[in-house]
Amino acid sequence: MKQTDERFMALALSLGRRGQGNCWPNPAVGCVIVAEGRIVGRGWTQPGGRPHAETMALAQAGAAARGATAYVTLEPCSHHGQTPPCTDALIAAGLARVVAPLADSDPRVSGQGFARLEAAGIEVTTGVRAAEAAADHEGFFLKTEHGRPRITLKLASSFDGRIATATKQSQWITGPEARRQVHALRARHDAVMVGGGTARTDDPSLTVRDLGVTRQPVRVVVSRRLDLPLIGQLARSARKVPLWLCHGSDADGDRMRAWREIGATLLACRVEAGQVDPRDMLGQLGQAGLTRVFCEGGGALAASLLSEDLVDELVGFTAGLAIGAEGLPSVGALGLARLDQAQRFVLVEARAVGGDVMHRWRRMVA
Amino acid sequence: MKQTDERFMALALSLGRRGQGNCWPNPAVGCVIVAEGRIVGRGWTQPGGRPHAETMALAQAGAAARGATAYVTLEPCSHHGQTPPCTDALIAAGLARVVAPLADSDPRVSGQGFARLEAAGIEVTTGVRAAEAAADHEGFFLKTEHGRPRITLKLASSFDGRIATATKQSQWITGPEARRQVHALRARHDAVMVGGGTARTDDPSLTVRDLGVTRQPVRVVVSRRLDLPLIGQLARSARKVPLWLCHGSDADGDRMRAWREIGATLLACRVEAGQVDPRDMLGQLGQAGLTRVFCEGGGALAASLLSEDLVDELVGFTAGLAIGAEGLPSVGALGLARLDQAQRFVLVEARAVGGDVMHRWRRMVA
Repeated sequence: MKQTDERFMALALSLGRRGQGNCWPNPAVGCVIVAEGRIVGRGWTQPGGRPHAETMALAQAGAAARGATAYVTLEPCSHHGQTPPCTDALIAAGLARVVAPLADSDPRVSGQGFARLEAAGIEVTTGVRAAEAAADHEGFFLKTEHGRPRITLKLASSFDGRIATATKQSQWITGPEARRQVHALRARHDAVMVGGGTARTDDPSLTVRDLGVTRQPVRVVVSRRLDLPLIGQLARSARKVPLWLCHGSDADGDRMRAWREIGATLLACRVEAGQVDPRDMLGQLGQAGLTRVFCEGGGALAASLLSEDLVDELVGFTAGLAIGAEGLPSVGALGLARLDQAQRFVLVEARAVGGDVMHRWRRMVA
Repeated sequence: MKQTDERFMALALSLGRRGQGNCWPNPAVGCVIVAEGRIVGRGWTQPGGRPHAETMALAQAGAAARGATAYVTLEPCSHHGQTPPCTDALIAAGLARVVAPLADSDPRVSGQGFARLEAAGIEVTTGVRAAEAAADHEGFFLKTEHGRPRITLKLASSFDGRIATATKQSQWITGPEARRQVHALRARHDAVMVGGGTARTDDPSLTVRDLGVTRQPVRVVVSRRLDLPLIGQLARSARKVPLWLCHGSDADGDRMRAWREIGATLLACRVEAGQVDPRDMLGQLGQAGLTRVFCEGGGALAASLLSEDLVDELVGFTAGLAIGAEGLPSVGALGLARLDQAQRFVLVEARAVGGDVMHRWRRMVA
């Protein structure tokens, strides 16, 4: 039974990941319903967060759900939100057993979903592929528990750690395969974030291209003074794809008005040591519902997040060229006095992507 | 026959690699003698360059060499050097066939070894695994054709490309597995090279440790002014393991005398733009017989070699920590005006080594 449970849970997890980047502020859940060894229903949280995975899978299963087992990647909700609770739907459908990796961290659910199922006579098994599920739901958990989204920091640099030449030329350090991989990573996040310097220098659109994506991630630009060009890719597309500007509470009123007129959403953040306070900023992004944010630099924003220990995953793309010490550093000043003060990350994966190296690292859990 | 040839040549190549770092100024050649499908002799260039691979394999094969096939990873020598020519030995042993990947680039041999064998009625097949053999013998070929050794540049850095903190602390950025791998790489090179700044800051011994190596690579330190500490690991061991100092022709006479007394070998190099001219320096190392040099930085020497297009292989070790922009850059100033002026390297391999990423790159062949 353990092996069977793990196999179906792996499938439910892979279905759940389809929703990543698409269903915030809700968690990206997957669900598989199995009757007598046969899959009779599959579901995942739909764009915008509804229907939930269980609703979709139950609709597919129909009468076959009676006496069946549901594999759900997170504890089914037990509260009346914008939809009726999934626990009620599972009970009504006559499920015999529910398998889930772990409890929801949302205080409105936590443990109560399981209790409700068991009270209705449904057998509940937990702990199946819990580590994988915890990693998949990390953004949602961080938001409910710490009020901030999960941060992936991407650094694409020369092998000597430079993201541009002294004259700020950065196109292209990495190759087309790595850039395509970056678009795939953007698509799996709720938002793409850059600092003001990158927005000024690169004039990026920050959208997901060439991957058939219909729902674009929110674009977030961090700029204390809002001194961003009012013409350019971001401004031009602000009414088509959400553009959120995290500025200092002391930003100029005229600039704030101008950006609001262009269609941007403004988030006023505390200023600390002359820059937008990254904790306050992420708190506001969490408050706004974001669970997974993909930060693409530049060096100052990367340093600000790293020095506050706010980076959950690091993705490096290293290209086969040297730019030299005059180039722009991928990470700005950190003020480290000693090597043992540097935060260590744990290697997850290293592989070739086209002619570049991709390496992924995760925050070390204390 | 083609598949059989490739299989035995792969074995000969792997035997040949045993000599890398041990047999300069001679090429590290491997040889397998096969009689009726059975291996009757195996050999590789011995420490110091003699006996040659063919001599060793023929001695093992004895009478079984008559009518057999010899797989040799380089054209057998045809000139009288410090040993009689290998072609004569192969002819005398009655070999029926010799398989080799490519001709020697040494003008005393080039093509004449093959001609001599064919004149004696031995069938000669060439081109088998030629690309691999060319890579293995690259250092020897560069020395005979361009008068300089092959350069591997190793950079061990934080993921933001820093080799030390602002206070020059560098121990340890990478983990024990990566450092062990560095020792294995040192052992496969004729010499290990660092710049004067690294020698001053790190007080390295630059020896191969914990790998059962009996013949240590030459230690090369590049220091225009010879302003290196006369006490320290390098000075202390100069009579046990060769220490070569590449200094500017304008270095102080007292320092030169002091280092000679300590046991170092001095190589006076041309000074160009205030530093030791890397082309002249490598020319002198080639003249002295080195075929493969492993350069471990620091940033200034790395930049000097890279900007003169003298790096044949790059080996990066990337650790999971950020040091920040105040840290020491892995590559010094290169003076690049545009990105397309940067030399591109081709990715050979990327993989985890302990908790770090190792990535290897080769010079792009125009």
